[in-house]
Amino acid sequence: MVPHLITALTGPINELEQRILESLPAIERWFRLEWMEHTPPFYTSVDVRNAGFKLAPVDTNLFPAGFHNLTVEMLPLAVQAAMAAIEKICPEAKNLLLIPELQTGNTFYLMNLQRLMQIFHQAGLNVRLGTLDESVKAATAVELPDGSSITLEPLLRTRGRLGLKHFDPCTILLNNDLSGGVPRVLDNVHEQYLLPPLHAGWATRRKTNHFAAYEEVAKKFAKLLGMDPWLINPMFARCGEVNFSDARGTECLQTNAEALLAKIKRKYKEYGISEKPFVIVKADSGTYGMGIMTVRDPKDLAEFSPKARSCMSVTKDGQQVSEVILQEGVPTFERVNDAVAEPVVYMIDRYVVGGFYRVNAGRGIDENLNAPGASFVPLAFAEAHQLPKPGVKPGASAPNRFYMYGVIARLAMVAASYELEATDPNAEVYE
Amino acid sequence: MVPHLITALTGPINELEQRILESLPAIERWFRLEWMEHTPPFYTSVDVRNAGFKLAPVDTNLFPAGFHNLTVEMLPLAVQAAMAAIEKICPEAKNLLLIPELQTGNTFYLMNLQRLMQIFHQAGLNVRLGTLDESVKAATAVELPDGSSITLEPLLRTRGRLGLKHFDPCTILLNNDLSGGVPRVLDNVHEQYLLPPLHAGWATRRKTNHFAAYEEVAKKFAKLLGMDPWLINPMFARCGEVNFSDARGTECLQTNAEALLAKIKRKYKEYGISEKPFVIVKADSGTYGMGIMTVRDPKDLAEFSPKARSCMSVTKDGQQVSEVILQEGVPTFERVNDAVAEPVVYMIDRYVVGGFYRVNAGRGIDENLNAPGASFVPLAFAEAHQLPKPGVKPGASAPNRFYMYGVIARLAMVAASYELEATDPNAEVYE
Repeated sequence: MVPHLITALTGPINELEQRILESLPAIERWFRLEWMEHTPPFYTSVDVRNAGFKLAPVDTNLFPAGFHNLTVEMLPLAVQAAMAAIEKICPEAKNLLLIPELQTGNTFYLMNLQRLMQIFHQAGLNVRLGTLDESVKAATAVELPDGSSITLEPLLRTRGRLGLKHFDPCTILLNNDLSGGVPRVLDNVHEQYLLPPLHAGWATRRKTNHFAAYEEVAKKFAKLLGMDPWLINPMFARCGEVNFSDARGTECLQTNAEALLAKIKRKYKEYGISEKPFVIVKADSGTYGMGIMTVRDPKDLAEFSPKARSCMSVTKDGQQVSEVILQEGVPTFERVNDAVAEPVVYMIDRYVVGGFYRVNAGRGIDENLNAPGASFVPLAFAEAHQLPKPGVKPGASAPNRFYMYGVIARLAMVAASYELEATDPNAEVYE
Repeated sequence: MVPHLITALTGPINELEQRILESLPAIERWFRLEWMEHTPPFYTSVDVRNAGFKLAPVDTNLFPAGFHNLTVEMLPLAVQAAMAAIEKICPEAKNLLLIPELQTGNTFYLMNLQRLMQIFHQAGLNVRLGTLDESVKAATAVELPDGSSITLEPLLRTRGRLGLKHFDPCTILLNNDLSGGVPRVLDNVHEQYLLPPLHAGWATRRKTNHFAAYEEVAKKFAKLLGMDPWLINPMFARCGEVNFSDARGTECLQTNAEALLAKIKRKYKEYGISEKPFVIVKADSGTYGMGIMTVRDPKDLAEFSPKARSCMSVTKDGQQVSEVILQEGVPTFERVNDAVAEPVVYMIDRYVVGGFYRVNAGRGIDENLNAPGASFVPLAFAEAHQLPKPGVKPGASAPNRFYMYGVIARLAMVAASYELEATDPNAEVYE
């Protein structure tokens, strides 16, 4: 299924699709060379937006949930990628400790956990769940809608190691993005592999670091393909000190929004795009689709409406917003059954293992779709590698389109690896 | 689809299936540890036979053809495995040279080549075909039934390197099993990766070496699972000098067949199996289902019938049979639409990427199925990793059954890697 794109089949994205297909061996080799120099994140999901005239990642998640939204046909790919990942990290491993988010009341999140456990079990590991919830004092079964259950266990910390009762893992896999900071129980775990590393958590990570790295990657890749990097790169700016409750930092936001909108306008003119430019304002750290605002006119930022204030001022786990990213808005012109849709691509190690469309009938093309009302339609990535044939009309073939999405998502993954290297607090140890 | 097994659902194979599923993490870890010490063959296909009371590999092919018989759903797995393989061997590679068999009149073989080219193209390589046929003096297109075509090119040898006109590959992949000996053009290729190595070809390889290695692997694996290795290991013997045209070596064959039949009989008695034992006599080197004989009574070997002589005396490319393997016959009790069937499992690098049932309505359960009349039914390996759940009744679930086949096939692949190490003519260089 290729979702309906409003734009005609002759836009820049179709040229890009054509060029990406023709350059497939060169592109795959380019990724291979990148992975010789850099370590891919353990797992990654990337939100991609296809505007017809432009295709860009808008969010890169290093603690992806939503694995249960992938089709079961994709499981073998995920298992094989997990095998490759484990083999590199800890081939002797028997046990994997998975540390989840605290939202154990969220059925969908529990299904994600169950799927992750299944993937790593099939890859050859005993997988158990250790919770950061200190109120959990003993193994506790949590039921899933299908009648099955998963068991949360209290973490057991010894001097050098982290585990569970009678369970000593070689690798500890975080599926918790550490929005609330790094809990003490995770400090100084040096004898085991703790992945992703703590500085990939939102306590440390900044979207502006990621998109600065992505800009670098997009430029290198655009050079390889001989194209304008803007076609795959969302421009951005940053304000370091913003407080939405007392409107501090408004000037910075306004100035930057104005400049960014002007830059977008120039690009739209260059390409003859008649869309109205917009900017997305969101917290520089944090996730979960909270604290995201669409700005079409910088004046909107002068006086915050109470609604905007309440929307922006608190993100997940009650963090105050103080650093802000302003990002070029990339409208999504894809539709699944008339509802606005954006592709989300999942990777384990360096491999694309699946994806889905996030669909939200209640939202506009210039709004965040990761919000109440969102639903999920699996992408046919399992066929992605099968058909990319130059003969197929651009925009008309699901495998060709999804191959392109997978390329863009992997560019964001390369950027994440640059970002994690640059922000590694222990980097001097290796130099 | 699980093919109909004649045996009841309570036989030793179902116990084995149960035990293999329960031990999944331990088994996968065991393979990981093996691959830390040993290098998997580049690609492998294994013929497996399920007798209900016993499950064993009967042939391990290191230059597999038949990739076109895998379902397209399995392609992404094959591509991902090929990516992993290439990345280890030659990550900077742009070009792959594929050297095929000479049977360019065989449409099925051409389809296999096309599929292989597709897999390695998707994995990020420019793939071209260089033929050993010296009568090909210029690029020659060969048409396929679907109207597409593939191009055979003459090999171009320089002092240190092998390639094609304007095509210098990093890796040379043989899909030619060298039954006719090693052509001079492949000698002393030291600057490039030539895979599989020349000593994996039938000019050097011996089935008895393989099954001796497999016996070792089967014993280790059986110890891990606490079971009798015979349940997965076909016993064998060897005669070094047999000439079927003048009946030389008959005594060796008779003595060995008698001893082997007696050993099988003892095992059948131990397990209460009422089948009539048989032995398969085949060339110790060579392939293509030629020169294979089923022996139920050693007396059959005393005086060769003219038919047996003409059948045995020549194998592929006109090699005289002189070394012979006698292998415990493993009947296949699987049926697809009433025709006798045996699973064939395909691997690239260490990963199972697919498989099919070889079906032959004109053959018996104790005969070689790789013969005229054979057809192919894809195995649902794409689901293999998805469901292995202990709750499913043994023998009743396709994924569980195919997971078990994949395990046995991988044991044969481990054996092949032992075998290639032991027979490596350059081994002393590394020691």
